[in-house]
Amino acid sequence: MSGDRIEADYLLETPIDPRIAAEIIAGEQSSGTFVPVPGETPELKARSAARVIRLDILDEDAAGPALPGASPAADGRFRRALVTLSWPLETLGPSLPNLVATVAGNLFELKAVSGLRLLDIRMPSAFAAAYRGPQFGIAGTRRLAGVDKRAMIGTIVKPSVGFSAEETASLVRKLCEAGIDFIKDDELQADGPACPFADRVKAVMRVIEAEADRTGKKTMYAFNLTGDLDQMRRRHDHLVESGATCLMASLNSVGLVGMIELARFSTLPIHAHRNGWGYLARHPMLGWSYVAWQKIWRLAGADHMHVNGLQNKFFESDASVMDSARTCLTPLFPEKPCIVMPVFSSGQSARQAPATYAGLGSTDLIVTAGGGIMGHPDGPAAGVTALKEAWAATVAGISLEEHARAHPELGRALEVAA
Amino acid sequence: MSGDRIEADYLLETPIDPRIAAEIIAGEQSSGTFVPVPGETPELKARSAARVIRLDILDEDAAGPALPGASPAADGRFRRALVTLSWPLETLGPSLPNLVATVAGNLFELKAVSGLRLLDIRMPSAFAAAYRGPQFGIAGTRRLAGVDKRAMIGTIVKPSVGFSAEETASLVRKLCEAGIDFIKDDELQADGPACPFADRVKAVMRVIEAEADRTGKKTMYAFNLTGDLDQMRRRHDHLVESGATCLMASLNSVGLVGMIELARFSTLPIHAHRNGWGYLARHPMLGWSYVAWQKIWRLAGADHMHVNGLQNKFFESDASVMDSARTCLTPLFPEKPCIVMPVFSSGQSARQAPATYAGLGSTDLIVTAGGGIMGHPDGPAAGVTALKEAWAATVAGISLEEHARAHPELGRALEVAA
Repeated sequence: MSGDRIEADYLLETPIDPRIAAEIIAGEQSSGTFVPVPGETPELKARSAARVIRLDILDEDAAGPALPGASPAADGRFRRALVTLSWPLETLGPSLPNLVATVAGNLFELKAVSGLRLLDIRMPSAFAAAYRGPQFGIAGTRRLAGVDKRAMIGTIVKPSVGFSAEETASLVRKLCEAGIDFIKDDELQADGPACPFADRVKAVMRVIEAEADRTGKKTMYAFNLTGDLDQMRRRHDHLVESGATCLMASLNSVGLVGMIELARFSTLPIHAHRNGWGYLARHPMLGWSYVAWQKIWRLAGADHMHVNGLQNKFFESDASVMDSARTCLTPLFPEKPCIVMPVFSSGQSARQAPATYAGLGSTDLIVTAGGGIMGHPDGPAAGVTALKEAWAATVAGISLEEHARAHPELGRALEVAA
Repeated sequence: MSGDRIEADYLLETPIDPRIAAEIIAGEQSSGTFVPVPGETPELKARSAARVIRLDILDEDAAGPALPGASPAADGRFRRALVTLSWPLETLGPSLPNLVATVAGNLFELKAVSGLRLLDIRMPSAFAAAYRGPQFGIAGTRRLAGVDKRAMIGTIVKPSVGFSAEETASLVRKLCEAGIDFIKDDELQADGPACPFADRVKAVMRVIEAEADRTGKKTMYAFNLTGDLDQMRRRHDHLVESGATCLMASLNSVGLVGMIELARFSTLPIHAHRNGWGYLARHPMLGWSYVAWQKIWRLAGADHMHVNGLQNKFFESDASVMDSARTCLTPLFPEKPCIVMPVFSSGQSARQAPATYAGLGSTDLIVTAGGGIMGHPDGPAAGVTALKEAWAATVAGISLEEHARAHPELGRALEVAA
């Protein structure tokens, strides 16, 4: 692509000629509006207008409008097309917030569209220079967690909320003793009076440091510091002082400017949680694809990105989950790849290891099993062991069933997950 | 409602018993997960679990699932229900970012829902104490703009992008001479090399100050300072030094933490742009209602909130637009009403004044007509005059057609808009 233009790909559905619809979108998102205005000269348009640089009309029409409120279709047809628009960088400069307003602004509301989904974004290299990207990524995370090469086995504190700081620490002790690599707060656990952040950090880090002294292995714990900016700064500093090695933030709660700022002051890996993703993505003809969306956050500075998991408890298909995970391992810019650790989560257990490995072709991932570990019939320690055994077997090319014969924790886990 | 609980209303569609679906959502968004886990005791649940406090099953089933990926319906029915959940404040504390993760987190992705829309949120008064809310609102905006009682007439610089700073200022001069109350940057106009923010502010404020010296009327200009936090701080300070009286930010680009922080340091009214709203709201069984969504931003500190406009160029119905506008004028907390100025925008012209006034029952609003002013056949000044005449006639109870007889600018505007 050109070095000074931004590109975005869309899946478009429209009641009018797709070529006209694409031009309407390009106009709305650059120098045009719904009536001709003085000043929009040919020279200005040549300089500033968005351009339709690709339009592939799909063979099959939609059965009807995917979304309400579109113009009536004169010929009763709702055509679909793949559209690529491009914008001159000089209009907005290398600014992520303004990129979002440009590629994902008012266009979804147009009557000329009965469906519109942002599939991908390509940014010129000026963006790579303007933002930090992940500071830790895969190598930094592995170094801090002391996990070389293999899949990182993690869990989420469950119950998600309701434990006191001491009760949380008590569970963390069991998990550390079981040799877990990674633990995270649930995204609902923040800094409420029922389990204050500072108390939780103190109680949990005391356990983690004691275990590390004893065994040499320091479990990585992602503390959810989601909050206002001053709170996140204070909590970050508190984490650093306490010896913590990871923080967590909810992307849709913090928002883009908050995440950019967090990444600028953070000296810890950022575990980025995507809760709320459903309202951005569940309708297939509206909103964001994960491929487009995760690029924004990786460049902003996320180190770990949630991608859901195979056979998850949510609506998403396995194919979509694997696309999301693979895109996290695909370079963003040649000079700044911004590779992040994909985090598999939601309904995960030992059972999914073989398909996850086959689909990703890598062990550069974190798998967090909440119920899958806490709900193991023999307790959380057995849950951790079962997951590690499942991944060891998978990488060695041994089936889970075969491996389970000599590994009872895995066997018991498979009975529950079956 | 109870003083220490958060409530949220949803429109639910589900392939299973709505009572069970509501309990699944409540569990997912508090102490539960997809399998029973040790530690989730009855005492913990009583203390920490979200509760279903209302469930009204609607008479009519959906024809089929609104969204893909839901569980199959055993009896082929997709029932709809109005559901209210409540959460204890003590789990998260009065934190807007964590409120979002709680009421609008993972729930939209559940297989137990085939449609879910957040309709409303009610926060206990601890939230009112924790956030700033609008500093200027209606009274402060009117004072700075020098507009008493009547509707504020505004416009958007068009072409949206492509003008240099000097070309922008030249248009602003014409609009000021025509007596316009309010001008805003388009949300696509930020701080690119083609029209740098500092140059634009300098050129525009020189014109506005000169006009104010001449006529005593200082037009309010909302400069779009959307950007990273340090950029927004710098641009804000620059605006203050330059005598500007308003700033603009794109809510979905800046995000919640950025907006909270902006509101904390801003000494100017915040004109909040909702571009991207379509991906949050266009599907009626997914995402956010504006009634719920705008509460977050009002409490965070927005002074003006975009609500679209009647007969707009977008998908939204007039009834929905008026609901959105009215909710901006409805108190949020008894002790902190957080009333904001609704901004009518998108395809607006003189034509919509009577219905807008009839629907809102107030002139506490800004109407911004872009093409409707710039596209007036006799030029922008005639466009401003026509809009002022339309509102004067409306408030006086005179029909536009009657008023147009003695007011040619209005007459010409109606010819174009008809």
